Amino acid sequence: MNKYLAELIGTFWLVLGGCGSAVLAAAFPDVGIGLLGVSLAFGLTVVTMAYAIGHISGCHLNPAVTIGLWSGGRFSTKDVVPYVIAQVIGGLLAGGVLYVIASGQAGFDVVASGFASNGFGEHSPGQYSMLAALVCEIVMTMMFLIIIMGATDERAPAGFAPLAIGLGLTLIHLISIPVTNTSVNPARSTGVAMYVGDWAISQLWLFWVAPIIGAVLGAIIYRVIATKEE
Amino acid sequence: MNKYLAELIGTFWLVLGGCGSAVLAAAFPDVGIGLLGVSLAFGLTVVTMAYAIGHISGCHLNPAVTIGLWSGGRFSTKDVVPYVIAQVIGGLLAGGVLYVIASGQAGFDVVASGFASNGFGEHSPGQYSMLAALVCEIVMTMMFLIIIMGATDERAPAGFAPLAIGLGLTLIHLISIPVTNTSVNPARSTGVAMYVGDWAISQLWLFWVAPIIGAVLGAIIYRVIATKEE
Amino acid sequence: MNKYLAELIGTFWLVLGGCGSAVLAAAFPDVGIGLLGVSLAFGLTVVTMAYAIGHISGCHLNPAVTIGLWSGGRFSTKDVVPYVIAQVIGGLLAGGVLYVIASGQAGFDVVASGFASNGFGEHSPGQYSMLAALVCEIVMTMMFLIIIMGATDERAPAGFAPLAIGLGLTLIHLISIPVTNTSVNPARSTGVAMYVGDWAISQLWLFWVAPIIGAVLGAIIYRVIATKEE
Amino acid sequence: MNKYLAELIGTFWLVLGGCGSAVLAAAFPDVGIGLLGVSLAFGLTVVTMAYAIGHISGCHLNPAVTIGLWSGGRFSTKDVVPYVIAQVIGGLLAGGVLYVIASGQAGFDVVASGFASNGFGEHSPGQYSMLAALVCEIVMTMMFLIIIMGATDERAPAGFAPLAIGLGLTLIHLISIPVTNTSVNPARSTGVAMYVGDWAISQLWLFWVAPIIGAVLGAIIYRVIATKEE
Repeated sequence: MNKYLAELIGTFWLVLGGCGSAVLAAAFPDVGIGLLGVSLAFGLTVVTMAYAIGHISGCHLNPAVTIGLWSGGRFSTKDVVPYVIAQVIGGLLAGGVLYVIASGQAGFDVVASGFASNGFGEHSPGQYSMLAALVCEIVMTMMFLIIIMGATDERAPAGFAPLAIGLGLTLIHLISIPVTNTSVNPARSTGVAMYVGDWAISQLWLFWVAPIIGAVLGAIIYRVIATKEE
Repeated sequence: MNKYLAELIGTFWLVLGGCGSAVLAAAFPDVGIGLLGVSLAFGLTVVTMAYAIGHISGCHLNPAVTIGLWSGGRFSTKDVVPYVIAQVIGGLLAGGVLYVIASGQAGFDVVASGFASNGFGEHSPGQYSMLAALVCEIVMTMMFLIIIMGATDERAPAGFAPLAIGLGLTLIHLISIPVTNTSVNPARSTGVAMYVGDWAISQLWLFWVAPIIGAVLGAIIYRVIATKEE
Repeated sequence: MNKYLAELIGTFWLVLGGCGSAVLAAAFPDVGIGLLGVSLAFGLTVVTMAYAIGHISGCHLNPAVTIGLWSGGRFSTKDVVPYVIAQVIGGLLAGGVLYVIASGQAGFDVVASGFASNGFGEHSPGQYSMLAALVCEIVMTMMFLIIIMGATDERAPAGFAPLAIGLGLTLIHLISIPVTNTSVNPARSTGVAMYVGDWAISQLWLFWVAPIIGAVLGAIIYRVIATKEE
Repeated sequence: MNKYLAELIGTFWLVLGGCGSAVLAAAFPDVGIGLLGVSLAFGLTVVTMAYAIGHISGCHLNPAVTIGLWSGGRFSTKDVVPYVIAQVIGGLLAGGVLYVIASGQAGFDVVASGFASNGFGEHSPGQYSMLAALVCEIVMTMMFLIIIMGATDERAPAGFAPLAIGLGLTLIHLISIPVTNTSVNPARSTGVAMYVGDWAISQLWLFWVAPIIGAVLGAIIYRVIATKEE
């Protein structure tokens, strides 16, 4: 039970920190943190949790990561479903806490704000097409898994994986927020979409399908380049 | 006496660096560092001091951290009060030095500037309600303690805790400056509020109560997820 | 074959991440990541790949680095050409994927956008002369090689080289984007110039010549200061 | 001779990277890196050089650091003068290279640009008084030496000192650029002031005196808090 609780808390932090910085601080007048600050925030949720709970649960915080690591032979089958459930619950709790805080400002409207939901087409921050969104989410998650598999490889320097992985998530956001608001994480997408409803839920499928496809591809690619070596 | 002096100097740096960047550089015309720069500054005060004095005092720099670690069984009862006193003195000295520097610019008015004080309601940067401020400060400090307890757990990679904890403070600021100007640290709040007086002092209670509640909650949660494991 | 594939994937990520952040996110209205975000993105592609594939290929991701390390006695002659080929292919693939994603926004014009190509004179972001571009690219790559040779020296702390080298690339971009859009990497320049054609290709020679000259100089300088010591 | 050459190259990089980012990129239209980017650049020059040449010269790159470490019993008397000379030469060379690059843009005027020189009163970026400048430079350098002495203490985690020290310099810039353009380093101040002449030279004394006073104070304070412990 313990590791599931750790995943729940960690994913709670990922969604509260990442989406919270976007909703509360990104566009604050004159001194807002912008997309750079939001990218940093998402990455730091992973850096901090990976050092704090990595030794308890492995700190996936992301159904695509869990499924990718499983497909790469790094994670046991029996824990996949409980991890994914814990991650989604953590994301939804974070959405709730963020809703309470954001509602403390007069005039807050969860739907009008977008609440950091992921989207494509007219709901993409830069109005990118569904095809661009699919390609982008698949490729970003694929590279994310290569980073995760590589940085936790026993031949990589010990102790640095949380930095590499967290900063990798920052990098992914630096590239792709304009395209889809960046998901690469179905639990993060679900955790806020449920509060927005409507289009955010009807587009949610892409942010489950594309990250999972990308994650499996990345895990396979890493196994190819890593195991041929020997 | 030595470790108390280290806490005093470290908290002096946290308040001078964090609040100093906010007062002097955040809104500098055209090229100001914004809330992102202030968030980074707060975090780097902890990163730098944790590597510099962590081996002397543990580098708490924060009454809520001291009380949280004590409640989590990581800190001895006899040192709690001296640590808190040293932290508050360090914060007040920092406020004084910052006052001297800031006064070197013609037209500086400590009250009108806000002097990086924490507040809620009409004194929140984004006019967030007292309830939002309470929830935000409690949850942020709770997660801060989970990060601190986890990153200093003997099972976590050695040497990285200062980075994880300092960048955790950066992350907390990236999320919550608009809500309360971010405290999670009663010594930081007190160190500047005393120079502003008035509303800053009358709202100061929240920035003692909420961080301490959050810190104790975080310490308890970490003990639950960490000890069940075995 | 394995290490060549790793170089291809790593350089793919460097160009997709660095140029992608520039094309997609740098000038996003109001909250764009700016040159600071692009600088961070380029550096983080190296940080993440160095931890992920450093143990497979050494993670050069750059023909100038490969040639510099070879001239500094750190890389075998037989692998120079295959590495450079793999890097250029990776860069071109990244340009293609970025083209697909960027084209998902109505009105995208690869030539008008510049597509993050490197240039001098009227094609320099700040209209810097060819001489300034030459000096800048030579000096920047020279220092990059000193950082790479030094941080991977057996006397340097183990495990930190990816951070030092990646953050070194961030630093180089913080200085020199206005001058040439920053190359220091012929594969990065080639990977996007081929899609822009025209001026981007006719100026491409400088971004092969200057980085390679700089890299060889840097490798020589490091050998001088490092070997005299004993 | 070798370590002197390393100090020369390292200080060259500090001044070229830090002042270069300020002169070339800080105020680039719309997407400039601002004071946050300049702060990061200064810090990363130290991070990169400390990993690259720390094992050769100790990587001081700063006369105040050399004198502070000497006064703290960490550096031999015979090397103080050669180190300071090497640092000043490195700084002057960097000013020269930066001058060549910056002159590649039509309309560049070294005096009108300020060339990243340090100043107070009417030459302070925010018109801060001489007293504020003195206090600020003394306190900032004092804390810098505490960070340096502490992070390189044998009880601190091995390998992390370059990060702590470099990010400490970033933090110092995040606070104090508006006050003096931030020196804490006489070689950095001298390296650019010589090209501006006039007021930059007549105010240069403060950026030798204040950093050296601060450095000696910091070294003494660290010895007090560190040695009493036992």
